[in-house]
Amino acid sequence: MEPRSIIAGAEAAQPDVAAATTAAAEAFATYRALTPDARADFLDAVAGEIEADREEIVRAAVAESRLPEARITGEVARACGQLRMFAGVVRRGDHLGVRIDPALPERAPLPRPDIRQRQIPLGPVAVFGASNFPLAFSTAGGDTASALAAGCPVIVKGHPAHPLTGYLVAVAVGRAVEKAGLHPGTFSFLLELDSARGIELGQSLVRDPRIKAVGFTGSRGGGLALVAAAAQRPEPIPVYAEMSSINPVVILPGALAEGDVEALATAYVGSLTLGAGQFCTNPGLLFLPRGEAGERFLAAAGAAVGAAVGAPMLTPSIASAYQSGTAELREAPGVRVVAQGSEGGEQAPAPQLIEAPALDGVTEEVFGASGVVIRFDSIDELLPRLEQLEGQLTATVHATDADAADAARLLPVLELKVGRILFNGWPTGVEVGHAMVHGGPFPATSDSRTTSVGSLAIERFQRPVAYQDVPAAVLPEGLRDDNPWGLTRRIDGELRLP
Amino acid sequence: MEPRSIIAGAEAAQPDVAAATTAAAEAFATYRALTPDARADFLDAVAGEIEADREEIVRAAVAESRLPEARITGEVARACGQLRMFAGVVRRGDHLGVRIDPALPERAPLPRPDIRQRQIPLGPVAVFGASNFPLAFSTAGGDTASALAAGCPVIVKGHPAHPLTGYLVAVAVGRAVEKAGLHPGTFSFLLELDSARGIELGQSLVRDPRIKAVGFTGSRGGGLALVAAAAQRPEPIPVYAEMSSINPVVILPGALAEGDVEALATAYVGSLTLGAGQFCTNPGLLFLPRGEAGERFLAAAGAAVGAAVGAPMLTPSIASAYQSGTAELREAPGVRVVAQGSEGGEQAPAPQLIEAPALDGVTEEVFGASGVVIRFDSIDELLPRLEQLEGQLTATVHATDADAADAARLLPVLELKVGRILFNGWPTGVEVGHAMVHGGPFPATSDSRTTSVGSLAIERFQRPVAYQDVPAAVLPEGLRDDNPWGLTRRIDGELRLP
Repeated sequence: MEPRSIIAGAEAAQPDVAAATTAAAEAFATYRALTPDARADFLDAVAGEIEADREEIVRAAVAESRLPEARITGEVARACGQLRMFAGVVRRGDHLGVRIDPALPERAPLPRPDIRQRQIPLGPVAVFGASNFPLAFSTAGGDTASALAAGCPVIVKGHPAHPLTGYLVAVAVGRAVEKAGLHPGTFSFLLELDSARGIELGQSLVRDPRIKAVGFTGSRGGGLALVAAAAQRPEPIPVYAEMSSINPVVILPGALAEGDVEALATAYVGSLTLGAGQFCTNPGLLFLPRGEAGERFLAAAGAAVGAAVGAPMLTPSIASAYQSGTAELREAPGVRVVAQGSEGGEQAPAPQLIEAPALDGVTEEVFGASGVVIRFDSIDELLPRLEQLEGQLTATVHATDADAADAARLLPVLELKVGRILFNGWPTGVEVGHAMVHGGPFPATSDSRTTSVGSLAIERFQRPVAYQDVPAAVLPEGLRDDNPWGLTRRIDGELRLP
Repeated sequence: MEPRSIIAGAEAAQPDVAAATTAAAEAFATYRALTPDARADFLDAVAGEIEADREEIVRAAVAESRLPEARITGEVARACGQLRMFAGVVRRGDHLGVRIDPALPERAPLPRPDIRQRQIPLGPVAVFGASNFPLAFSTAGGDTASALAAGCPVIVKGHPAHPLTGYLVAVAVGRAVEKAGLHPGTFSFLLELDSARGIELGQSLVRDPRIKAVGFTGSRGGGLALVAAAAQRPEPIPVYAEMSSINPVVILPGALAEGDVEALATAYVGSLTLGAGQFCTNPGLLFLPRGEAGERFLAAAGAAVGAAVGAPMLTPSIASAYQSGTAELREAPGVRVVAQGSEGGEQAPAPQLIEAPALDGVTEEVFGASGVVIRFDSIDELLPRLEQLEGQLTATVHATDADAADAARLLPVLELKVGRILFNGWPTGVEVGHAMVHGGPFPATSDSRTTSVGSLAIERFQRPVAYQDVPAAVLPEGLRDDNPWGLTRRIDGELRLP
């Protein structure tokens, strides 16, 4: 049985954008009016339905993505954990941002009215999933979870790299919609296997007046096309596009002097080649001190890359973009190839590590296991180079106490470039939690004021509304004096726990 | 003595955008690093310096704006109150949005790193003040106050409608910058009296790569031009443009049946003609029940408008746009002129009240004392018309308990159209507080996710950054375990008061 909330499955001749957006607009009125508990229960139920179909979903995702089963199983857990985290956020209700400035009838020269504020959902959201996370950043991934949590109906444009996985997840979500008795337009899934027609489908979705926000994870070109389409609408809407990042890593001298250089280099190559390097947080650029310890690091990293065998990439076009991208890197001014691994068969190109004298020609993201190393003599040489970089998702620093002075100078520079700064680790592996930021200045994302991972993401699909002297009889429940939902509220500017 | 932080005064042949933005970018590093107390003290000092020059500022503003002295004096108080409110917000520190997910070293299969989040300021902000609020929405108005509070240096493009007022306020702000020992680039003021060159100046300011956000209050055309310029930058930036709104008012039958109809009509005309109608919250569109009580309301409102004398408008071009806008309204299909007041001399055109059969041709904002009345028989006739409206700053409902059922149906429709809903009052007069929203869906603003009045406005100039396993020695002070600033923090998702 195909759930009613899936507007167009793989077999549909022409996925119907208007039908999906009309249904979503209709669903919005009742979906946004759910109590926090009811909406949270629905999010939990979505996770449960996905888990019920786990075996089938994992099988499809492994086949379609060529990613290992353990990774896919982990991703299902991550997607479900994410939905449940947002259920917890919704139950707590802090995202409603309730503020009350009580009336001051005696104030002179004019009395102050009673003013109350809450956040309301923006409206139907279009979600474009990523190729590289068929579960956690796709059909029921982070954007879908945060939009549903905020109270927005969601329309997913299925990714052509994993159509069946997307479809199966959509079936599970649709079942949760139906069992909860929600309007079928609360969630829709549109699939178009022809990639040219798929781009058209995406554009008409973003241009549809009933869509009020867009979540996207993918390439810079794809993201910017949606940003442009949204800006050209009669009513412009926010587009949250997570696009490209080369995630600079800085090794400070202390980390080489005091650490195990070979282990550090091996760990770096582990992060670089993980999942065939197909992570938005892949460490594509590494700044390494000149000198003997740096040489040893580079030799060890080169050996590890040289010994690495390419893993199958997600799609033929991603593999071919990797091939041409790495070839272009080798042609950049003054570049030396440190090491190339071996191919792992069809669609599994060789990992590559190069050394470049400067940033010229090596700062464009090459999606895959491609590393660029740039050497430096001092922090004074390093800082201007970091300042030259475009916006990034992450920056990583390897340092010991001996590097504290340099690290303190790095931090304010990196803060203005990235969404997340991490020390003595690797950027791949993004925790789903309350403090995470997976975002950053353009072109890492199209909107640095938010995150696509972590509970703060719920705020991107909301806007504030003020209610002035609205009678208790019609005041939204969350704003009432008796605080029936037990919300944390800001009274006259001061936070009051329930 | 001209403070150094004023880059180009009225006498400058060519206000220097590059000099101002370079200085702002330099100032950013130290300004954003101030402790909350130091930044709050600076905001208080700005208010103090403006008050010290109050007499001179009021004289200039009355002469330039033609607004009454009492109104201008009130606006100085409002602008200073606003700065002090933001000082309080900064001292409290909740805007830093600190979130900590502590490390879980024992977690299986992988330990969880320590992740901390805070909001940081975006960078230098360009502020374009409004003609109609020479103090509260101009040089040291809401946008300047919230940007400075967030930690962003500000560059104000002085408004040609009140150059001297702007200059005098800038001198006061500059004095506060100097006395606090801040970098002079923390605040700059650029003035260009030639209006064509002024538009160029504004465009080059928005295009400057060192500018990271824009605040604007003014016309739809002006706002959209800045939005377009910002979107075309290599690095797009947020533009917060507060543009146009006709602020629908709905009178429900109970309010006519139980209230003093004549007093209600007089109060409406009072709000409509206040300050020559030059408020972004001016009630330009009123929905009135058909029938006898509605007739009485309309007759009384017509009498009040007919008796009203035009007050001088801010500029000759605003007065002439009002003349042509009201003439166009009279030409809209089926329009009947209910009343016209009399001219109050040069640049003081007559207030006007018309009745229209439908929305066709009457929904474009006419800045000034121009009212449109549309009659309705039932809530079922009214709701689709409200749904047809563009986004608005406010919606007003006049209702009694007898109208509760209708009011309850109105609320969810209005919520999706506006930033503020008010009952039994008038939209002019915007409280500066913690719960206020002065914003709303496009085209009321270019970004509905925020407000330009009230303490929430500080958030528009910030973005989140996560710090993963960053050593205590280099961790920003506000994120340290010992919580030296006594901040409210979200620990593992749960708010903890200090």
